[in-house]
Amino acid sequence: MPLWKVYHPVGAFTAEDKKKLAKQVTELYANIPIPKFYVVFIFEEMPKDSCFVGGEPHNKFVRFKIDQMARTTPGPVIREWWMRTLDEVIAPFVKDRGYDWEITIDETPFDLWSLHGELPPPFESVAEKRWVKENKASPYTITEKLPVNLVLAPGISDR
Amino acid sequence: MPLWKVYHPVGAFTAEDKKKLAKQVTELYANIPIPKFYVVFIFEEMPKDSCFVGGEPHNKFVRFKIDQMARTTPGPVIREWWMRTLDEVIAPFVKDRGYDWEITIDETPFDLWSLHGELPPPFESVAEKRWVKENKASPYTITEKLPVNLVLAPGISDR
Amino acid sequence: MPLWKVYHPVGAFTAEDKKKLAKQVTELYANIPIPKFYVVFIFEEMPKDSCFVGGEPHNKFVRFKIDQMARTTPGPVIREWWMRTLDEVIAPFVKDRGYDWEITIDETPFDLWSLHGELPPPFESVAEKRWVKENKASPYTITEKLPVNLVLAPGISDR
Repeated sequence: MPLWKVYHPVGAFTAEDKKKLAKQVTELYANIPIPKFYVVFIFEEMPKDSCFVGGEPHNKFVRFKIDQMARTTPGPVIREWWMRTLDEVIAPFVKDRGYDWEITIDETPFDLWSLHGELPPPFESVAEKRWVKENKASPYTITEKLPVNLVLAPGISDR
Repeated sequence: MPLWKVYHPVGAFTAEDKKKLAKQVTELYANIPIPKFYVVFIFEEMPKDSCFVGGEPHNKFVRFKIDQMARTTPGPVIREWWMRTLDEVIAPFVKDRGYDWEITIDETPFDLWSLHGELPPPFESVAEKRWVKENKASPYTITEKLPVNLVLAPGISDR
Repeated sequence: MPLWKVYHPVGAFTAEDKKKLAKQVTELYANIPIPKFYVVFIFEEMPKDSCFVGGEPHNKFVRFKIDQMARTTPGPVIREWWMRTLDEVIAPFVKDRGYDWEITIDETPFDLWSLHGELPPPFESVAEKRWVKENKASPYTITEKLPVNLVLAPGISDR
């Protein structure tokens, strides 16, 4: 989580551009926080006349196709905020250069995901926190699957 | 909505073929109606021996992988009709040329979608209708988010 | 079902490797059982510096992006077992060669799927069984849509 597929015209981005965009988006996800190495970018060039919008060839179009599996984005407020935040981060790479662009995010099953042979630990678990710190996948114990903030007696009383 | 990824053998389609297919499918969606510029096609060539079907190399195979986010196709009757309709439109490009083919559609979240920096307006809203007419994304007001056919007093009485 | 997209560094796999991997994974699905021709592999090369992990270029990374539509994998036990089984099968192609890798599976709608112009028959129907045997798509009757093991009087009594 996430996988960013970026379909772009040949030559739209330099190696430096790609790295900068990947880095900035990675920082965004790292703030959630999730481990940085969860963020994968694959850039794909679209040769001339292989992209069509509205039935016409469009050679100034960038399509971001994103899969997110580590978190389900909860509720309409956060979902709208997230889309607008992504649009802001990518604007210098597309809008400011005269490209049209489109973003879609799919939320794929958390439990059909494996990373370097490990099934990623639960959201906000002790193991996930360790993965954030170490920035790599490694085995974890059943104790580490517990939430970082474990409350064994939830109830109606104030805390 | 929709994104059509078309994976095809090198040289299967001319530039003219691609444009014709994109145009015909765009017309189909425009009839729903949705804005024409919602329809995006990306054609990708599969080099020889990079496609396998049933464990064997298959160099006469075309794979249509479609994401739809503007509409959820409602109910079994319309879903079957839609698949058969798509099969009819693409038949001259695949079946009639001796290719095997497969189509799948995924329905991804409507509210995790942004287009040229705008979150697309609700289904059948005044703003969507305007987008259909202008065939481009633009800001819209909260009033334009209302349905074109707004009924403020739904109920059991006849209309 | 399934579609396996394999994004890999240029030259990571020989033609022989690709065929072997496709064959072994196909066998796995064939054991469910589902028709072998349901299993489609598309290998895509990622040119140098078009793949980033955690914001840094990563040229030893293989990304498996899988769509499954013929079956929904039921329950946490089978879902975990399935991921671990896939990891085992691909290990010789990635882990044992020094690549990092990631697998995600999406489960897309069964009823928005068409294969060589046919809508695939229901799970474990007579028609599906015939497709397994013939290993190709063909028209089927309404009778063939019935389950292979049809029980017309389900109830609480022992069988």
